Amino acid sequence: MSSSASLQSIVDEIVAAMAAETERGKVATYIPGLACVSPAHFGMAVITADGALAAGGDATMPFSIQSVSKVFALTMALGKVGDQLWQRVGREPSGNAFNSIVQLEVEHGIPRNPFINAGALVVADVNLSGHMPRESIGELIRFIRFLADDETIVVDDAVARGEAETGYRNIALANYMRAFGNIHNAVELVLGCYFHQCAIAMSCVQLARAGRFLMLDGRQPEGGCVISPRRARRINALMLTCGHYDASGDFAFRIGIPGKSGVGGGILAVVPGKASIAVWSPGLNESGNSHLGTLALERLAQATGWSVFSARA
Amino acid sequence: MSSSASLQSIVDEIVAAMAAETERGKVATYIPGLACVSPAHFGMAVITADGALAAGGDATMPFSIQSVSKVFALTMALGKVGDQLWQRVGREPSGNAFNSIVQLEVEHGIPRNPFINAGALVVADVNLSGHMPRESIGELIRFIRFLADDETIVVDDAVARGEAETGYRNIALANYMRAFGNIHNAVELVLGCYFHQCAIAMSCVQLARAGRFLMLDGRQPEGGCVISPRRARRINALMLTCGHYDASGDFAFRIGIPGKSGVGGGILAVVPGKASIAVWSPGLNESGNSHLGTLALERLAQATGWSVFSARA
Amino acid sequence: MSSSASLQSIVDEIVAAMAAETERGKVATYIPGLACVSPAHFGMAVITADGALAAGGDATMPFSIQSVSKVFALTMALGKVGDQLWQRVGREPSGNAFNSIVQLEVEHGIPRNPFINAGALVVADVNLSGHMPRESIGELIRFIRFLADDETIVVDDAVARGEAETGYRNIALANYMRAFGNIHNAVELVLGCYFHQCAIAMSCVQLARAGRFLMLDGRQPEGGCVISPRRARRINALMLTCGHYDASGDFAFRIGIPGKSGVGGGILAVVPGKASIAVWSPGLNESGNSHLGTLALERLAQATGWSVFSARA
Amino acid sequence: MSSSASLQSIVDEIVAAMAAETERGKVATYIPGLACVSPAHFGMAVITADGALAAGGDATMPFSIQSVSKVFALTMALGKVGDQLWQRVGREPSGNAFNSIVQLEVEHGIPRNPFINAGALVVADVNLSGHMPRESIGELIRFIRFLADDETIVVDDAVARGEAETGYRNIALANYMRAFGNIHNAVELVLGCYFHQCAIAMSCVQLARAGRFLMLDGRQPEGGCVISPRRARRINALMLTCGHYDASGDFAFRIGIPGKSGVGGGILAVVPGKASIAVWSPGLNESGNSHLGTLALERLAQATGWSVFSARA
Repeated sequence: MSSSASLQSIVDEIVAAMAAETERGKVATYIPGLACVSPAHFGMAVITADGALAAGGDATMPFSIQSVSKVFALTMALGKVGDQLWQRVGREPSGNAFNSIVQLEVEHGIPRNPFINAGALVVADVNLSGHMPRESIGELIRFIRFLADDETIVVDDAVARGEAETGYRNIALANYMRAFGNIHNAVELVLGCYFHQCAIAMSCVQLARAGRFLMLDGRQPEGGCVISPRRARRINALMLTCGHYDASGDFAFRIGIPGKSGVGGGILAVVPGKASIAVWSPGLNESGNSHLGTLALERLAQATGWSVFSARA
Repeated sequence: MSSSASLQSIVDEIVAAMAAETERGKVATYIPGLACVSPAHFGMAVITADGALAAGGDATMPFSIQSVSKVFALTMALGKVGDQLWQRVGREPSGNAFNSIVQLEVEHGIPRNPFINAGALVVADVNLSGHMPRESIGELIRFIRFLADDETIVVDDAVARGEAETGYRNIALANYMRAFGNIHNAVELVLGCYFHQCAIAMSCVQLARAGRFLMLDGRQPEGGCVISPRRARRINALMLTCGHYDASGDFAFRIGIPGKSGVGGGILAVVPGKASIAVWSPGLNESGNSHLGTLALERLAQATGWSVFSARA
Repeated sequence: MSSSASLQSIVDEIVAAMAAETERGKVATYIPGLACVSPAHFGMAVITADGALAAGGDATMPFSIQSVSKVFALTMALGKVGDQLWQRVGREPSGNAFNSIVQLEVEHGIPRNPFINAGALVVADVNLSGHMPRESIGELIRFIRFLADDETIVVDDAVARGEAETGYRNIALANYMRAFGNIHNAVELVLGCYFHQCAIAMSCVQLARAGRFLMLDGRQPEGGCVISPRRARRINALMLTCGHYDASGDFAFRIGIPGKSGVGGGILAVVPGKASIAVWSPGLNESGNSHLGTLALERLAQATGWSVFSARA
Repeated sequence: MSSSASLQSIVDEIVAAMAAETERGKVATYIPGLACVSPAHFGMAVITADGALAAGGDATMPFSIQSVSKVFALTMALGKVGDQLWQRVGREPSGNAFNSIVQLEVEHGIPRNPFINAGALVVADVNLSGHMPRESIGELIRFIRFLADDETIVVDDAVARGEAETGYRNIALANYMRAFGNIHNAVELVLGCYFHQCAIAMSCVQLARAGRFLMLDGRQPEGGCVISPRRARRINALMLTCGHYDASGDFAFRIGIPGKSGVGGGILAVVPGKASIAVWSPGLNESGNSHLGTLALERLAQATGWSVFSARA
């Protein structure tokens, strides 16, 4: 797989195949702002290392990135406190459902990794670091706009309010970690940041653009260095081992590409040295990952040979 | 990193550095045959995709491969029953200690992956498939000899007896899965196979040779096809997500190379398209993985830039 | 054991023995209002079925009854909704530490019994039932005053504030159950009731008086019926199986009397047909129950032969 | 409730009511010897402290006592090693299903109480204490014959063989505890004792007779002392808190009498100072306790007022 022309034709085929799928998963219903999105949507955007874009379907329609935001929030937190972060959050797959509170009790308030909700709350706590939520969320939005080179990216306030109104589990998680001393700021402020971060709206094209630094060993295509190559590799590793809730192992097994999914139906996937990919379809499979998004990435990996576990690459 | 000359110098530097390390981990003591091995040993062998070998230290001294055997046993079982295997064993990281029986109760006798002990027992059950243990273990030995192109590889019977005498947890695991109907052969026969499989003795050079098909998308260097490229990618993925017990995420984070460790102190690591690597040092870290072996692989990855999560590769 | 004269001499001996004990347990420190209480205190009050009182030590000094309040709150909730309560809370010992959240996840937000914190929060939610916390806590205080025939019993507001400020685990528990739909009122209101209920201050004499209806099959000594005999038996049964956190089985084994302890160091114990007993000493043992209080009850049971498991009684 | 005449009429009424019940629970099917027993059976025998017997239904038909044997085996083990037993087994309700292995992992091979299978295996190991299984099981049978004053009580060998053939979970439990060092004899011998102990066949009349010492503070009706009053109280306490698997709390709540059930459908229940009761009906409820046996005991407790939590008694 070499030319961007052929990549576009692969994307076109996938878009057509996904449109024909009748089994489309179930849309998350716990927030009105998510529940009203039609499962008919499917979008895909692929940006290669040479900067070419192949896109199709609803690739420019914004959706709620939800947990995909954890990748950017983690990158920002590592920029603030560096490897000290790992004293407060682990790097192991959770082996549990994505909202599990059990492991926190056994492991004394230290979440297993930064991509489960508990870990993302600790990351949000680090990013807040004494500022007001408005400032912290503003900083994150500016960072994502910079990565995507797109000033139009915003928070969907209606979704953020929906999160705040129904997020009892997340409130429980944050208070529970506070009891162990692993949340330092006021719980309400941390949750405020987290709920707004999850409510960021982006299109597939915007998301694929924002993920380019992870395919380029930490550099922006224009040449600036966002993070070190080592940190980029490590974030990719975390996406591979922990990026898809309790189905992370299966995603690595079937598709072999680091990725992070969200309950809004979006997935950011990164093939180091080759491509930054975003897919979106709101219907979720049993594991809480986009049903068509996962299928589309599997097809793309087969058609291109992209896999971090392949010798051909 | 290109020439084999410079690769040998990297290996030489690592061997020298490991010799100077005073903290060498703790040797596994539960079997006499393992407990009597000196923690002073360190060996390393690297075979690149072009067939070059760089080796150093105790690279030709045989050691007990223990859980590294699970990679070869899994490959053999997939050859027998294909993807039907995945109805009896999962593909997710365990999130638990390597001998945990808890998860089996919650998940009705289905082990989370083929690299925890419970999963390896199911794989041994598949490989046994109505034959006698002697035949089954003979088939596995012949398969490994073929992969390594070395007829001298044998089972260390003293170690196998030691496993059988003290393996109460494994006996418990096998009986527990039998209660759920997920062990089909007589428990004693399955355990006999498993204990002998763990007692296979290989040197780093032999082990690195036996792992070449995983760096070459399933092919032998001479050209024969052992398994399909897809299956090779998938086994590599399982090694990355599940290959180091409860420290698999940390190994992927720090080193970024698929690998499988054993309590004998050996690690087989595979850089697809680039290298098949074996390291050995009997002292283990807290997670049960070779202490110096892990350090050595981290240094090798840094020196060579090898990582499945890197764009440079 | 028959005459109240000899009962007083038994109490006197116990008070003297407890004063001589050097190992007095550790005072709970998580609330300033509890932490500042001296472990030197010990009080005991025993009221027999014929109305006689034997008391000694600090038997008239008020202390924070904490979880002992769960007995009275449960009695009140059963009066409101009857056996429907058992659809929202179980009747089994927890087998876990008293603040465990693990079991809630596995059992879908239904606490195992009304005496663990989660269960007491559901009971508080039932008692709140659409009213304001001030009214609900007022109702509970009036109920306890009626039972003890003592209008001076009050809430210690400083302790209530301390609970509210540091009760992150309880906040987490309440939100977690709210996520499962098993808390119906606003979480803050339920927690407000719960924190005030725990902060009720009573002396041993007051507490033993308030517990008389449980020794008399649900009747007050003066003759009024508080609850049915069946309900009284059942509350006694719950105290025996679940009244001492994760040491309930050991308390039943060693002492054989239904009881409920609190982290303030108080224990209410009930010998049906024979005695209502309150002991208090602020130092706690490893299980979170009053160290000297438990010892004193063991001595009292030995001296009197009181045990629900004895034929002699 | 005073005269034995009226007690017999109560038993007659219960027998008639149970005969009319259409919902009779499900017979345990894991052993052929149990599976072939008709759920139509119901028997009941009540022996009061004054030696009177009231019986009805299939009260003289032998059935497999299964876990009820744990009461006698525990009594025997306490006679051998006294309170040292409690270093190897706990006294707390399990809060888990009766065959759970999870708790053993968390608590390092120490079962929570002697009435779950793991605890009973430790008790069997204590009773074996270097002898041959034949001697150990012979000693237990002689002890039960002595208690019941009936030399005809025997082991049902067909049932014992069935246990041995299908008892994979118990084999797993024993090996698991052996791995922690909490089984001292060879696992096969311990299991042999346990399987034979469970296969003891007794009728309701025999079982009620064998339980008399527990209602009489440790004495036989003829006057001999089997165990101390304190030990009798403590065994009664364990039956109340742990005697009905994961429904022990509910049994205490509803019925309020110490008891021990078995999957053969038998229940031994003890009202200290008043009655030793045996009921049998092979159909089990969801918790694994006799469905009609539980109902019958609830009716008997209501009709007689017997409850350890009642003041009237």
